[in-house]
Amino acid sequence: MDIEKLIAEITDEIYNKVSSDTNFISAGSSSSHMDMAKYLDDTLLKADATPEQILAICKEAREYKTASVCVNSWYVPLVAKELAGSGVKTCCVIGFPLGACTTNTKAAETIDAIKKGADEVDMVVNVGAVKAGEWQYVKKDIEEVVVAARGKALVKVIIETCLLTDEEKVKVCTIAKLAGADFVKTSTGFSTGGAKVEDIRLMRQTVGPDMGVKASGGVRDYQTAKAMIDAGATRIGTSSAKGILSGAPEAAGHACTGCGACRQKCPSGRVDIVAANNY
Amino acid sequence: MDIEKLIAEITDEIYNKVSSDTNFISAGSSSSHMDMAKYLDDTLLKADATPEQILAICKEAREYKTASVCVNSWYVPLVAKELAGSGVKTCCVIGFPLGACTTNTKAAETIDAIKKGADEVDMVVNVGAVKAGEWQYVKKDIEEVVVAARGKALVKVIIETCLLTDEEKVKVCTIAKLAGADFVKTSTGFSTGGAKVEDIRLMRQTVGPDMGVKASGGVRDYQTAKAMIDAGATRIGTSSAKGILSGAPEAAGHACTGCGACRQKCPSGRVDIVAANNY
Repeated sequence: MDIEKLIAEITDEIYNKVSSDTNFISAGSSSSHMDMAKYLDDTLLKADATPEQILAICKEAREYKTASVCVNSWYVPLVAKELAGSGVKTCCVIGFPLGACTTNTKAAETIDAIKKGADEVDMVVNVGAVKAGEWQYVKKDIEEVVVAARGKALVKVIIETCLLTDEEKVKVCTIAKLAGADFVKTSTGFSTGGAKVEDIRLMRQTVGPDMGVKASGGVRDYQTAKAMIDAGATRIGTSSAKGILSGAPEAAGHACTGCGACRQKCPSGRVDIVAANNY
Repeated sequence: MDIEKLIAEITDEIYNKVSSDTNFISAGSSSSHMDMAKYLDDTLLKADATPEQILAICKEAREYKTASVCVNSWYVPLVAKELAGSGVKTCCVIGFPLGACTTNTKAAETIDAIKKGADEVDMVVNVGAVKAGEWQYVKKDIEEVVVAARGKALVKVIIETCLLTDEEKVKVCTIAKLAGADFVKTSTGFSTGGAKVEDIRLMRQTVGPDMGVKASGGVRDYQTAKAMIDAGATRIGTSSAKGILSGAPEAAGHACTGCGACRQKCPSGRVDIVAANNY
């Protein structure tokens, strides 16, 4: 297979589609009153995160019923134990956050993490190889993780949108799909930028309706999370799950009437937060 | 062995020494006209570094005869090939930059990198485990890399000083020495701060004269590099090797007389750069 030719053809096709198909229905926009929690990967990835902090987000995730708790791989055993029986998945990052370790290292980390209880793995693409146009390497780097995880864990591919051109984003998403990954994901949160609505839209257009798209990096409130979902995201990575959920229409214990009792900027747009705080 | 007790005793001893022994002679201060290049690890670790950029620093390192070129592990084969026969070592980072992957992953990356040509590996300590006081884990995490590298590569332990208290710095350096590492190193350059002279002094006091100490993160000029060496550093990690060496006394092709011909702030302090530029 001439992978460069295939990618060029797909890129052309996608760009033509993006410019002509303005009524594309995103996978995430089918429910207007969705349960936001099920979209969230409750995330804590800083180098100095302590076991106590990890336990706290596990507790929060169990309470809110988020999709997963996402941590660095050494915390997988602790998280898997804490979440057992809760329905909340254990997610960890791989080759994080630079994506520049060897492919063997990414595969070894995947195998080790799954053995220790990971249900989902978020791997970082090799950005340097993308920049160099080494598409066979980029594909193999993803494939080795997919093979290591097959039948045992979902694989999300972090493409680090802030470092890529639009053309590179389309190419990497196409490669991730070809390599058999389950999701494409915008950002590590450790580079120069996070998730943008326009990137989610482009990524969704590229991978079609059947693959997952995860918005991550800088998503800290309900409005932003909702905008990402409306643009096609099916998962949100965030270290502000509580902040996002406190802004949801149902946060005040009732469907949103615009009363402002939730003390947040009203999702309906009918009540200003300043006015609400004067209640 | 009661490792906690041992560390507490050593910490007390070191703190007493630091406060009383103000005339400690650092390992790096024996030569006043040292060849700066041999102290430098010429470093490029950003996620989107391209092969062309890596080749450029290899060329620079060969020209200057630096100690090593330090890269992410996927670039080891390219660097090892480029540096073959030059005397410049191939160095790569392990578990970088968060240090929060599993121990098995760090060991696997070490084995893979050495197999591909790495002469030195700079591993990141598990900072979360340090913060939690899980000293046995911290030690084992380092030991597994030391075992994987034994007889084949030097091991440097990045302790990420900006995230640690002074007491934690002393404890981690002590653990690194106990675990058989060859160097302690200040910083990844990807966290909240870089190398500080006072940290180098503390680290040198802790590990004694026979272990390496590497200053890394934010060292970009000759004066700063020289200050680190005077405080006890035996290696400098920098992405500014050219900048550092252009400020060295011998940069103008002669021993420093304070003439300012090197067009840098004069290391002797006798000529101001502004005046020098008017020559």
